[in-house]
Amino acid sequence: MFLLHPQLKADTFFVAKLQLCELRLMDDSRFSWLILVPQREDIKAVHRLEENDQLTLIRESSAVSNLLTAMTTPDRINIGALGNVVSQLHWHVVARSQSDACWPGPVWGCGERIPYVVQERERLINRLQNEFSSLGL
Amino acid sequence: MFLLHPQLKADTFFVAKLQLCELRLMDDSRFSWLILVPQREDIKAVHRLEENDQLTLIRESSAVSNLLTAMTTPDRINIGALGNVVSQLHWHVVARSQSDACWPGPVWGCGERIPYVVQERERLINRLQNEFSSLGL
Repeated sequence: MFLLHPQLKADTFFVAKLQLCELRLMDDSRFSWLILVPQREDIKAVHRLEENDQLTLIRESSAVSNLLTAMTTPDRINIGALGNVVSQLHWHVVARSQSDACWPGPVWGCGERIPYVVQERERLINRLQNEFSSLGL
Repeated sequence: MFLLHPQLKADTFFVAKLQLCELRLMDDSRFSWLILVPQREDIKAVHRLEENDQLTLIRESSAVSNLLTAMTTPDRINIGALGNVVSQLHWHVVARSQSDACWPGPVWGCGERIPYVVQERERLINRLQNEFSSLGL
């Protein structure tokens, strides 16, 4: 059974269930940073997913990338899976700006998270949910 | 026409041409670190590739991940595309160990590269070429 890792649960907020992944918002207001967690049991790496799931993951990643690009007109989208700290497979999609706190370095391990204020977070999650429901993923 | 970015050319060595990507070895002996560069003109992000190319990229990424896992028995494989420094789309596959120089942080922007000595590099590239030719990618 798929269970979200407690650390991911603590650091992120639920946005939507897609075909493969649970889409979550990283609670770090410095970045537009989404996390895709494949709803599969005990998977720690992309290459351990079944091939069809790998293909779905990259499709969902690109859908999220396109959406973040439309919403934030970033300079770059950073994507990837590390898992050095939290082993459960989770896939990052981060909109980056040349003026952001960590540019041009990676966001992982960079400074301290700045949690969203509740109202801002709820507004963003609502907007993401609306956008994703219109995509029909 | 596909042209490799001069910075990527300077930092990496040619290993093989796969179906979509040129496979290159990052010249940093601290890590087993391979780079996949889709041989497509003027593409800066995964979600800008045509869908078939995205699917091929994730397949090639997983083939490289499996190979590095077999060769180095790492603690984790880190994969992803950032491009904050070099804009041409290039995909990282890095074998990580809990004892490596940057663990648990990311390799990007961590310390200084330690280039391979020539003999070690040539031996590694030969080995990678042999492994990949047997995969038939």
